[in-house]
This record gives sequence, structure tokens and C-alpha cells, in this order.
Amino acid sequence: MTGILVESVTDTTSDEVAATVAAAAAAARPWAAMSLADRARVLDGIADALDAHAAQLIALAMRETNLAEPRLVGELRRTSFQLRLFAQTVLDGGFLDVRIDDADADWPMGAPRPELRRMNIPLGPVLNFAASNFPFAFSVAGGDTASALAAGCPVIVKANPGHPALSSAVGELIETVLAECGAPRGSFGLIFGRNAGVQALTHPAVAAVAFTGSTAGGRALYDLACGRPVPIPFYGELGSINPVFVTADAARSRAPEIAAGLLTAVSSSAGQLCTKPGLVAVPEQSPVLDELTRTASVPTGEMLNETIAAGFASAVARVREHPEVRVLAGGSPGEALLLVTSTRTVLADRDALMHEMFGPATLLVTYRDNDELLELARSVHGELTVSIFGDHTDDTAHALLSTAAGTAGRVLWNSWPTGLSVTYAQQHGGPYPATTAPATTSVGTAAIARFLRPVAFQSVPDEMLPPQLRIANPLGVPRSVNGARAQ
Amino acid sequence: MTGILVESVTDTTSDEVAATVAAAAAAARPWAAMSLADRARVLDGIADALDAHAAQLIALAMRETNLAEPRLVGELRRTSFQLRLFAQTVLDGGFLDVRIDDADADWPMGAPRPELRRMNIPLGPVLNFAASNFPFAFSVAGGDTASALAAGCPVIVKANPGHPALSSAVGELIETVLAECGAPRGSFGLIFGRNAGVQALTHPAVAAVAFTGSTAGGRALYDLACGRPVPIPFYGELGSINPVFVTADAARSRAPEIAAGLLTAVSSSAGQLCTKPGLVAVPEQSPVLDELTRTASVPTGEMLNETIAAGFASAVARVREHPEVRVLAGGSPGEALLLVTSTRTVLADRDALMHEMFGPATLLVTYRDNDELLELARSVHGELTVSIFGDHTDDTAHALLSTAAGTAGRVLWNSWPTGLSVTYAQQHGGPYPATTAPATTSVGTAAIARFLRPVAFQSVPDEMLPPQLRIANPLGVPRSVNGARAQ
Repeated sequence: MTGILVESVTDTTSDEVAATVAAAAAAARPWAAMSLADRARVLDGIADALDAHAAQLIALAMRETNLAEPRLVGELRRTSFQLRLFAQTVLDGGFLDVRIDDADADWPMGAPRPELRRMNIPLGPVLNFAASNFPFAFSVAGGDTASALAAGCPVIVKANPGHPALSSAVGELIETVLAECGAPRGSFGLIFGRNAGVQALTHPAVAAVAFTGSTAGGRALYDLACGRPVPIPFYGELGSINPVFVTADAARSRAPEIAAGLLTAVSSSAGQLCTKPGLVAVPEQSPVLDELTRTASVPTGEMLNETIAAGFASAVARVREHPEVRVLAGGSPGEALLLVTSTRTVLADRDALMHEMFGPATLLVTYRDNDELLELARSVHGELTVSIFGDHTDDTAHALLSTAAGTAGRVLWNSWPTGLSVTYAQQHGGPYPATTAPATTSVGTAAIARFLRPVAFQSVPDEMLPPQLRIANPLGVPRSVNGARAQ
Repeated sequence: MTGILVESVTDTTSDEVAATVAAAAAAARPWAAMSLADRARVLDGIADALDAHAAQLIALAMRETNLAEPRLVGELRRTSFQLRLFAQTVLDGGFLDVRIDDADADWPMGAPRPELRRMNIPLGPVLNFAASNFPFAFSVAGGDTASALAAGCPVIVKANPGHPALSSAVGELIETVLAECGAPRGSFGLIFGRNAGVQALTHPAVAAVAFTGSTAGGRALYDLACGRPVPIPFYGELGSINPVFVTADAARSRAPEIAAGLLTAVSSSAGQLCTKPGLVAVPEQSPVLDELTRTASVPTGEMLNETIAAGFASAVARVREHPEVRVLAGGSPGEALLLVTSTRTVLADRDALMHEMFGPATLLVTYRDNDELLELARSVHGELTVSIFGDHTDDTAHALLSTAAGTAGRVLWNSWPTGLSVTYAQQHGGPYPATTAPATTSVGTAAIARFLRPVAFQSVPDEMLPPQLRIANPLGVPRSVNGARAQ
């Protein structure tokens, strides 16, 4: 890390935070009023700037995060792709959810229906708490920033302390692109330090918060957001165990493949992924266990930083010290750790054993029969993902699938939850504590919905309406009319 | 009120509440699993049952609420219409927001895209706090119940203490229809008493809350919902002043019409409407003021009950006792009250003068010039509605419209906000305190979205998917595929 860059990222002062929020508040209307085409140009421009500076940014990220170059190259590509996908989402206009009711004197409600023309508008300044583990994709120019800018909201990013120089460099690129595109000053701001984050979160002008991080830290911020005189939406991804259920059929017929997939999912990026499987149910005396026991050492690479490493060590200790838990394989520094216990133990001591270990470790949980497997599956709740390895002719697999849909935001079949794709149908969220707002996603094009609210205009003359709502629909946005599907 | 009915509605005991919630939790999966056609049949069935028992229900409502028969006849019609509209919404299937990504090996993110098939599923048991002022449309069989049942959630209604016998009678009709349609026991429950409501709200099995009522009461419940170990969404409509801005043009050219419309909006249903205009800005020396001063007495009818009347008297007193506020007209028992003050006074003493008076009163606020009018408009926030009376060639009217969209969920032009239509494009919500969840509406077909969350299925075999997600789409629900519009 270069000395110059480190010096440039001291904590933001209280006066600077106040100025950043005031600038965002002042930018809210003019930024929202820029055309959808201009908004898309900004998102594409940020993507282009990231790509153009890839070598420099990746070098910074390598120095600050210990992540390997190929992983960072892929993550940067994902991040610029994500920005371009939101640019397309903006141009499509479907996110506006335009609904039009023509006036109807014979509306069967019993009173004439007035003309109503409704669309989504931006919420206002959004505060994003950047994550440690994706220095590009969930950080300064990541999904929360992309979706909030796409929605038409100014964005203030509270930088993650794990990669301050990279955060500054990306922030400068974003500011340059915004200025070049004619966006108002204040459309983007970057702040450093926990106190700065709390100050911004409690500022009356901030309209919504996005967060990815720990359950304890996230819950404290959620409580602050809800406790404001004017509460604001808090979209927090707080943690997940991402259970994997391996049926007896699958364990018998595909043990080597399942064991290999598990080791990759647990060890890649040193297990520092929000969808890393942290609990894997397998039959007693399973060939999967035999395969894993034979595993010598799976190297993981270094962890992101000392804070993350210390948190991981502490979370692992809580599980490892349990008298009924033993080490199946690994666990030396720099290699993945596989722990093992029984379903009976987990069900008897849920609080001690079912919590996220953010790093390269997982808990294998053995079950005696399908009833015990289903009991275990029903005991988990609030997950980003649940994965099932099984056969489609197996009743137990069907029961697991049905239970999983009630537990998680994403349900996977014979596949691993790591390697989250950014798509139209993606769902990265789930019941608490996976997220604080289970109806939302932080990944995929639907993430834009978090930063919008609808407004209906009643009997407003055509020429006074926003263009998307006018009779002529000059921007060609999709619209539902009188309850009929959007065109 | 008959003695038998009153005796039957004592407060629900703690054991009874626990049993009601447990029954709702047990009903959640089977009720969610019933077909969309069956769900629609239940909603239509409740509508039919209300209509079939209209005479009896209206007689009960008249005894318990002091509302006039024509108003109650209209409200019941609205309520059964609303249930049938949600039945259509269920059958349409658009609320499922089905999105499908086909697998794509060349997805430009840099990694192959897996197959993802996503749809909305019900959240689980919903607790509805019924309102006092609409004993049908916002009570036991009202919009919150209709939209939550339509979403596939069991519903527990905490009855409003203002109309207990009517609540019991409607609850029995709903239970009968559910049983006739084969819905699981526990799909609907009715509880009485504040403690019972709080107990249900803090029960782990309750998944979401809907509330319409006062800011103080609603905020206390919101805080409890957010403070749970597992927080749940709280959809609260907590109060609104519903400002009306009359431009100089409109005041000059349409004074008699505006004065008459205002008196109707303030006095109908004794002003006990969440969209009653509570602040009306007019020019100094306006012909509108002259018209209103000439008004002798506008009768309002009795208020709903003594609690509401006492709350109204207290809210009015806070405004009326202000040294710069005077009575313009009315104010004797049983007639509407028009108070008047200046914009300067309101801006100088916002907290004392800008709060809801739930009853037949409004505060006329005089402005000296357009700058003062715009300053007043910019000072309000968190409204269900803002109404503008003006001329479309007037720049001030344009500025008011633009400001209003940032303040309210519904913006009206030359029309009054009372008489809320139940439609596809309706928006009944707005920034806090109008609602605690500004992205949602409690009226109109979009209200169903409050009780849903998305689940994505990754690489799940076709025969294991819910029918709405299968390749064949046997129910014909609209679906977006690879980012292209729903068909």
C-alpha cells in the first residue's frame, strides 16, 4: 500500500459528513430529473472507467485485501457488467412500474373512478455501507451504488476500512464520470469511519440505507435507522449459514463429486463469501464423510485482514470447543477446516452451533434417517440460500425443497450456492437475519426496487405530468393500463 | 347494540391469542398451497357473504359507529368490490412477478449463468390492526385482510374497539366461507383488546403487520415490530394533514366551487377520513375566505365514538389556542370548524400547527404572495395526499406539483382527496408519518405486494417446481423471460 494513498483516507470529520449529506440532498432533485438516457450513460461511464483503470485498481485491491489476482480480475469484470446491466434496466423503464387508470364513470366500486397515473420515483439520498469481502462488487461501485444511482438517488458510500485506498480511487473515478456527464455535484459522496457512517445514517436528509456485513454490526445500524424520528428503510444483509442437505441417494451415488464441490465452496476466497455453505447435512457412515476424511489439506489463501481473521477465529472457537464437535479434516493456518457433529447435537444446542463462521470452515452434520434430516431442515430459518443434493424421484428431496422455500431466498438443486450470478431473476435475500427486508434483493436487476416509491397523479393535465405518464408516452416505457399487462 | 353480541366480545385472553397464532402458523403452508382459483373463490365468497348479510351488518354498524346509513351502504359496496378485485388480481397471477433466466454459458458477467426461476411466495401469518373510521373497508374484511388473504397469508385481525359486535359478525362470515371453501382452520382469526394485539405482534410466528390509526399508537407498535429478536415488516398508515394549495388564479376564478368542495371534504363522515384536508392555503383577502366566512353552519353528524371525539377535541385545542389562530366559521357541536392563520405563523410554529385533527376541522392558511405559498408547500412532508387548485398555464402551479410529488403518495389536481378509489393505479401511502413503509400502498391492487417475498429456484428439475415456474406454465401466469417483458 502506498504511503500517499493511506494518508489520504483518514476518517471523515463531522463537518465533512454534514457537507456530504447536504450536497446529496441538494443533488436529489436535479439528479432524479436527469433523463433515463443520461442516467444510463453515467452507469455505463463508470463501468468503462473501471475497466480502463483495471490494472491499477486490481493492484490496489491485491495490496489491501490479500485476494488473488484471478479472483479480483473476475470480480472487476462482474462489477462493470453489473453497472451496464443496470444501465439497460434504466433504459428499459420497467422499473418505473407505470400504471394508468383511465377515468371510469361506471366503476363498479359504486363511485366514479378518477384518472390515476402512477409511477415509481427515487426515494432520495441513499447511504451504502460497503462490504469487506468484495472490494469491487459489494463496495464503492458495487451493486448497492449501481442500483441506487439507477433508481435516480444520490449515493453516499461509507467505505469499508479494509480497502481504503481502493475505495478512494474508485470514488474518484465515479466523481469524474458524474461530472463529465453533467450530473449535479453531490450525486455521489464517500465517507470514512464508523462515526461518520452513524452520523450520516441519523441525518434527516438520508432516505434509505444499504448494508452488507455482520449480524451484530448490521442489527445495531438497523436499530438506529428504525429509531430515527423519521424511520427509513434499512436493507441489510446480515449473515447466513447456507445449509446444504445431502440425501442418502446423493451421498451414495455421487460422494466424490459432492466432496470435491464442498471443498471448493468452503475454501475459495478463503471462505469469505456470504453464500459459503456453513452447515452440510450428510448421512452417518456416509461415503461423503469418508472422502472428506481422506482429504489432506485444502489451501485457502490468506484472509482479508486481521479483523476478519479474528472474527473467524472466534466464531470457529465457539463451535470447535463444543464437546460433541470434532475436527474431521484441516484446520491448520491457511487451510480449510471441516468440523463434524450429529443432528441430535445441533438440535439440542442450536444457538451454540448454528451461527455463521465467516471464513474457510464448515460443520458437517450427520443424520441417522430421513426423519432426522427433515427435522434438521425444518429447524433452520433466515437463510440466503438452501442447497439440496438429491434425486428427483426421492420423496425426501421433495420435502426438503418445500421446506427450503420457506427458509431461504434462493433454493439450489445439486449445485453450490457460491458464485452468485447477476441476472434478471436473481434473489439475494431471505428471511431475517439473511436480510432485514425479506421482500428485497441486493443482487440482480430487482435490487433497484429498494430505492423507489410510487406516486399517483390524480386528474393532472397531460402537459404537467412527467413524460413517462403522458398520453403520448414519448420515452416508450412499458405501462399497465386499466389493469391490463404492461406493453 | 344487542346484549348477546356485546357479551361475546370481551378481550381475548393470552391463551386464546397463543392458540389463534398457533392455528395461523399451522395454516400457513396449506393455505399458501391452495390453488389460485381456490384463493379467488374464498375472496369472492366473502364478498358474496357480506352482500347477502348487508342489512344486518349495516344495522350493527349504525349502532356502533354513528355513521349514516347511505355512507355505510356505500362502504359495504366498496368492501365487497375490493374483495372481488383482489380475487381478479389473484387469478391474473401478475402479483407473482415470475422471472425466468435460462441457463446461459456466454453470460457476459464472465461466468456461466445458471437457470434461475423466481416467483413471489406468501410471507406467513399477517396481523391486521383494524381501523375505527371504516368499519367495513378498513376493518375485519377490509383491504388489509383482502390483500393478505390474496397473497396467500393467514390473517389475524385485531378488532377495533369501536365496533366489536360488527367485527364479530363479519369474522364469523369469513370463517364460514373459509370452511365452506376447504381452507385450513386458522387461515383467519379475530382477537380483541390492546394487550392481545401486542402479544400477537411480538409472537415469533407472526410475519408482518398492517395498521391504520394514530401516529402515536402506530409508532409504538412499529417500534415493537422493529425491536423483536426477528424484526418483521410493519405497514402502518399513521396520519396525514393532506394539504391543499389554492393558487391566486384558482381563488379568483373559482371561489364558490372551491369553498363548497372544501366544506364537503371537511364535513363528510364528520371529517374522520385519513385523507381529509387539514390545511388549506389560500391568498390573503381571498374570495375563498369571503365565501367561507359567509358560511353559517355546516352540519357534520356525530363522531364515531367518545374516544375519537376526545382525541379530536384535544388536537383542535392545540391549534385553536394558538394566539395567532382565529375561528373563521363554525365550531359549535355537530358542525364543521374552520380556523385561520397566516403562513408566517405556520412556518414559525410548525410543530404546534401542523398536526392531524382527526375530525371535521381544517386550518386555512393565508399567504401574501407566490414565494410564501411555495415556501409553505416545501415545508410540509410525509403526506398521503397533496392537492393543488390552479391553472395549467401558471408557473407557480407547476412548481407546486413538482414539490408535491416529493412530499406525498398521491398528488391531485383541482380535486379533493377524500373519496379514495380502489383501483389498479391507486397509491395510498407516502413518506413517514403518512406510512412507515413509503414504497407500499394499503389501497389498490398493489397492496398485495406487502405480504410477499421472492424465492429463486436454481437448476431445480421442472417436475419439482411450483406449477407457475414450470416450462409448460399450466396456469398461464404472466412471466418475464431473460429480462424481456412479462407476457
